[in-house]
Amino acid sequence: MGESTENLNIALIGAGNLATNLGLALTRAGHNIVYVYSRTEESASLLASRLHCTYTTDIQEASRLTFGCDVVILSVKDTVLASLAEMMPKESNTLFLHTAGSMPMDKLPMTHRGVLYPMQTFSKSREADFDIIPTFLEVAHEEDKSRLQYLATGITKKIYWLSSDKRKLLHLSAVFACNFANYCYDISSEILAKEDIPFSVMLPLIQETTNKLQQLTPFEAQTGPAVRYDTNVIERHIDMLSDDPDKQQLYEFISKLIHKRHEL
Amino acid sequence: MGESTENLNIALIGAGNLATNLGLALTRAGHNIVYVYSRTEESASLLASRLHCTYTTDIQEASRLTFGCDVVILSVKDTVLASLAEMMPKESNTLFLHTAGSMPMDKLPMTHRGVLYPMQTFSKSREADFDIIPTFLEVAHEEDKSRLQYLATGITKKIYWLSSDKRKLLHLSAVFACNFANYCYDISSEILAKEDIPFSVMLPLIQETTNKLQQLTPFEAQTGPAVRYDTNVIERHIDMLSDDPDKQQLYEFISKLIHKRHEL
Repeated sequence: MGESTENLNIALIGAGNLATNLGLALTRAGHNIVYVYSRTEESASLLASRLHCTYTTDIQEASRLTFGCDVVILSVKDTVLASLAEMMPKESNTLFLHTAGSMPMDKLPMTHRGVLYPMQTFSKSREADFDIIPTFLEVAHEEDKSRLQYLATGITKKIYWLSSDKRKLLHLSAVFACNFANYCYDISSEILAKEDIPFSVMLPLIQETTNKLQQLTPFEAQTGPAVRYDTNVIERHIDMLSDDPDKQQLYEFISKLIHKRHEL
Repeated sequence: MGESTENLNIALIGAGNLATNLGLALTRAGHNIVYVYSRTEESASLLASRLHCTYTTDIQEASRLTFGCDVVILSVKDTVLASLAEMMPKESNTLFLHTAGSMPMDKLPMTHRGVLYPMQTFSKSREADFDIIPTFLEVAHEEDKSRLQYLATGITKKIYWLSSDKRKLLHLSAVFACNFANYCYDISSEILAKEDIPFSVMLPLIQETTNKLQQLTPFEAQTGPAVRYDTNVIERHIDMLSDDPDKQQLYEFISKLIHKRHEL
């Protein structure tokens, strides 16, 4: 099992954005997806048809079938991970992995347990290019390391071994860089929509803001009225947001924090 | 003056990031930069040498010399724009332009006045590809329209005519999409630095977050624990930020706003 020329038999517990993209990448790497489990018939059957495998919506059956697998990947919402994991066999030769950046490995009660966290934002409608996704790995027992390494190197060139403690900070960091940055784009689009200006005019600016990070740190790349706290501009901006006190408060708060950071 | 085959004689008042990039783009377009004015000898001479033109640090001289120019571009900090403009001749055939997204055109007291606002984040050390920069134009008098149009089409394919009122909202929108998104990257890098994880691991995620915007609105693209307000994850994240109450407060506030936006 896990010899470096062998295709692995893998089960997917979950059929969300990440499970979908992971299933596709593992299939392309030549592995055999044995079955998919999802709570709902609709998402289970949809992913199974994309992966040309069987599916079940019965967690008892999903649990029994894990004995026939080299690896079982639990890719489900953080809130249900622990309770689903509880329903799986604790003692077997199967390696159980979860994919959650924010959850410690030990949420899994099995002996052979580990984590495969591909740090990316996934959509079912966009097939991810796994090759370039930094993927963070962890196992409880040294003996499982090669099996996980073999699985991961099949789908990405960027693998890192990282403890649960460091991974949770990585995940927090990703929330700022991805989710919160995207919310800034969302506010930008809301403001433009009021003036019937298409959001597409903003894309070159957004692109350049991220391109700069190839050469500069975000600290060095920071521009805008907040850096020197240009009171005139900042007050006018806060004024323009007068129909939306939440955004006024957010604008002022972020501006103060940027200024504080650049005063130091 | 401003006939469509003619190269224009242009003066640059200011030698900052935008003036530098604009001067380079105008030179490439075949125009003649006559001189650069900057308050400091160092930045005036540096830009003049890059543009192969003369320079002055004497505002009186800069003002006199404008009579020999077709176009004078004031590209200076918002806070000094009005006072510098006051020192220029009000009645002449020269077209005076400013480049500030957040300033109304009428900050310029001249008869022939207008705005050329290239919406981009500029660094002196990175030469901007002006071609793809959405550039927003405005003039006070119809007769100056063709001169500005001619100037702008020489440096970018993306020109839009936009009133001062709409431009200030565009600029506000850009502060969120560029400056505030970049600050989210900065926080992300601070968190990683504490764990000695290089910020470069975050770049594929940041790239994909912006790539998604080619297909999805930022609203549709939003992911993360805040969307459904996953209390477990959010509380743990706030806990991890316990050494930095500002960031705790920011995390909680943005998470609440994202949740509110997606509840609607």
